[in-house]
Amino acid sequence: MTLYLNLAELLGARIEQGLYRPGQRLPSVRALSVEHGVSLSTVQQAYRMLEDSGMVSPRPKSGYFVSDHRQLPALPAVSRPAQRPVDISQWEQVLELIRSTPRQDVVQLGRGMPDINTPTLKPLLRSLAQLSRRQDMPGLYYDNIHGNLALREQVARLMLDSGCRLSPADLVVTTGCHEALSCSIRAVCEPGDIVAVDSPSFHGAMQTLKGLGMKALEIPTDPLTGISLEALELALEQWPIKLIQITPNCNNPLGYIMPEARKKALLSLAQRYDVAILEDDVYGDLAYTYPRPRTIKSFDDDGRVLFCSSFSKTLAPGLRVGWVAPGRYLERVLHMKYISTGSSASQPQLAIADFIAGGHYQPHVRRMRSQYQRGRDLMSEWVTRYFPTGTRVSRPQGGFMLWVELPEHFDTLRLNRALLEQGVQVAVGSIFSASGKFRHCLRMNFAARPTPQIEAAVRKVGETALRLLDEESADA
Amino acid sequence: MTLYLNLAELLGARIEQGLYRPGQRLPSVRALSVEHGVSLSTVQQAYRMLEDSGMVSPRPKSGYFVSDHRQLPALPAVSRPAQRPVDISQWEQVLELIRSTPRQDVVQLGRGMPDINTPTLKPLLRSLAQLSRRQDMPGLYYDNIHGNLALREQVARLMLDSGCRLSPADLVVTTGCHEALSCSIRAVCEPGDIVAVDSPSFHGAMQTLKGLGMKALEIPTDPLTGISLEALELALEQWPIKLIQITPNCNNPLGYIMPEARKKALLSLAQRYDVAILEDDVYGDLAYTYPRPRTIKSFDDDGRVLFCSSFSKTLAPGLRVGWVAPGRYLERVLHMKYISTGSSASQPQLAIADFIAGGHYQPHVRRMRSQYQRGRDLMSEWVTRYFPTGTRVSRPQGGFMLWVELPEHFDTLRLNRALLEQGVQVAVGSIFSASGKFRHCLRMNFAARPTPQIEAAVRKVGETALRLLDEESADA
Ligand SMILES: Cc1ncc(COP(=O)(O)O)c(C=O)c1O
Ligand SMILES: Cc1ncc(COP(=O)(O)O)c(C=O)c1O
Repeated sequence: MTLYLNLAELLGARIEQGLYRPGQRLPSVRALSVEHGVSLSTVQQAYRMLEDSGMVSPRPKSGYFVSDHRQLPALPAVSRPAQRPVDISQWEQVLELIRSTPRQDVVQLGRGMPDINTPTLKPLLRSLAQLSRRQDMPGLYYDNIHGNLALREQVARLMLDSGCRLSPADLVVTTGCHEALSCSIRAVCEPGDIVAVDSPSFHGAMQTLKGLGMKALEIPTDPLTGISLEALELALEQWPIKLIQITPNCNNPLGYIMPEARKKALLSLAQRYDVAILEDDVYGDLAYTYPRPRTIKSFDDDGRVLFCSSFSKTLAPGLRVGWVAPGRYLERVLHMKYISTGSSASQPQLAIADFIAGGHYQPHVRRMRSQYQRGRDLMSEWVTRYFPTGTRVSRPQGGFMLWVELPEHFDTLRLNRALLEQGVQVAVGSIFSASGKFRHCLRMNFAARPTPQIEAAVRKVGETALRLLDEESADA
Repeated sequence: MTLYLNLAELLGARIEQGLYRPGQRLPSVRALSVEHGVSLSTVQQAYRMLEDSGMVSPRPKSGYFVSDHRQLPALPAVSRPAQRPVDISQWEQVLELIRSTPRQDVVQLGRGMPDINTPTLKPLLRSLAQLSRRQDMPGLYYDNIHGNLALREQVARLMLDSGCRLSPADLVVTTGCHEALSCSIRAVCEPGDIVAVDSPSFHGAMQTLKGLGMKALEIPTDPLTGISLEALELALEQWPIKLIQITPNCNNPLGYIMPEARKKALLSLAQRYDVAILEDDVYGDLAYTYPRPRTIKSFDDDGRVLFCSSFSKTLAPGLRVGWVAPGRYLERVLHMKYISTGSSASQPQLAIADFIAGGHYQPHVRRMRSQYQRGRDLMSEWVTRYFPTGTRVSRPQGGFMLWVELPEHFDTLRLNRALLEQGVQVAVGSIFSASGKFRHCLRMNFAARPTPQIEAAVRKVGETALRLLDEESADA
């Protein structure tokens, strides 16, 4: 594990155990450096990470202090999903969300769109245009079933940053991460099989399990550290689980990054019970800390991790370019990819390969990371300001999604209906559960650069929630 | 049924029954016009169709004569596949074919590539380039889950030509016809279900059935009129068939167009036994006769036909734009589409919509149709000239594929291996069967404008086949 992460976890644990109390001063950078035999900058990185997670706050010239938690909204509770495999529902609500096309008159806080209005994407558009002008028309040919080789070379290079040493031959390009997920699930499971998932979990992945006839076993998940290994182990003992499907980095919708020690422990568990892991890393490059967190795949020494990702969140979703590193399931995934779409569209693959090779990827992602981090801070603040007291809010470590938990019996479906009339839309919590849990939760997107309209939209969400709560208590 | 098709079928039947004999003069256009009460041009169209199928030939100033069949190679035999549902094999051979990337030093007669080196595609490339330069970057957004609306409007318009009256809301855009096929199959069938297929049949469709866990029941198929309705009816009586999957127009690999009366009869059969039909029309717009043939979908009055197509053969495969008109299965297909790739790449959809709206589609397809028809004539001639006597050859009515049948015990896998050393590749027949039949057959692509290199390549195929046959008989 990287030194600073180690240290951050240690300090975090001490704070959580109450060794340091809210408002108390923490040991100086120098003292910790001596105590743990690490460099000053390692300690600084650790503190910065704790700062990002909201646990500590710096005061100019006087060092770091344990955050006064009364100022930060409380975290969502650890989820308590159904304790048995279930058939997945909620397709109607998902359909409602994905059918809604961008509309000028609606602020869509519910979608999974990154911000694409940024000058750092210009070179990508240039590449797309140049490809269309080339005499040999490379965009018009079927590409290799594995995907374009130049792109796979670039992806293999990018994956070094998360600790993965893979060759282009280990990768299969897909039509977005969606296809990576469905090919991976089908490569491992038969209809009727049980898949363990973190909970809440990305609705697309849930619906994929549903569509392929799998049952989901939702595992309790901590809003800061991810899937509960204890609960997972119990489940592995009790049920014939075939696959563990999780998003450990910049989780959608909770935003946590699973600590490295827990990633390793999860892998050991999977090895012990001989199940495969589907690791969805679609937001991994958007972690606010640098260097980006490692993947479970990077520790995988027996090919049981199917790693899925795409450029939909880091670059743009309309390109539909994703990939999978399927480990020992490569041959099966290739077959599934072939029958699902043949090859993927050529031109977007070529343009992205150009973009990365031209050195444009890192500057772009760096810019987006800090924009999103500011977005998180601002939106958290707005929620604290405008939402009912008692609202709990996630503390994302990357990506651009905020998870908001309202009082237990609140109905966000009703809220969303009331909001649509006011030109605002959020993602209702129930689509993030196989069995319609999280009805009192919602997810909001903070990717776009903040504007007064967006603040007004968040305010409307909060005020409408308040109004509905008031009506409820009046009714009661 | 269109008048001229009716007449052509009638005349064709008379010739086949021996009422008119090879070399004999046929009734004049005027006489037939009076006899059947149709216009002169209807009779001319009927004759032209029979001419295309090689049954009659015009002699200047003296009218039409029954072709001397000794000059045309014999047609392949009606297929005699296994009489029971089978698990599909042949993935390794398919993988070999689709893994092979375009190589300068190999003439690839085996692939399914149309000719894209044509000035009539220029406006499409212009649209792609223009889209990349637009400030609002429409190519970067997730599109609607149904697919881009402008594109669906254009597709609905095009489908009028085959007799289909559909609205954009009846269509779902897919990532190539591949995705249309797999979403359709999954919308109707569960793993283990039996699907009746024409035989030989497109290898991608076969592998899709395999990947989804279906069993294929191959139905005997006539090289001129398509799937045997008699055999199909017997099969429907005997087995719990869920779906009939066929390519009735410009069939891949046989090239036939199923006569309209048989299309209707097939639909009635499906209605009687209450099974769904998957109609693959990917080559339908490339029929050599004008107007293009009708689809089974155009007669469908209870929504049981799932119509699948794409622009991969008419425009370019690298765009990966296909669609499905799923009839009563719309909702299920939408779910399957969502879990398979989410939405499809935006930019290719927008560019194709532009291209059609700009009036560029029909001129392009017209040009390709006549190029392909000339290609068919030339390649048939080459096969007659260079292949072993007794070789049987299909008589395609559209598209750009020739099916060649060598003596019964010949092994085209061995042939293809010997050919690769000589820089030529064909598609081996066995991949067009669920159970590895057609080992003595092969498929060649005649899309590219003819060159001496292509003739030399076909010659090499023929001569290598001859050599292998000689070696065999020497061994025996
Ligand atoms: C966790 C997660 N995985 C996968 C996806 C789908 O990605 P893509 O658009 O590349 O199919 C999303 C997007 O919403 C996501 O949030
Ligand atoms: C009959 C048939 N259907 C479907 C396809 C696949 O089309 P697409 O490339 O659009 O997926 C092909 C292409 O080879 C084909 O021949």
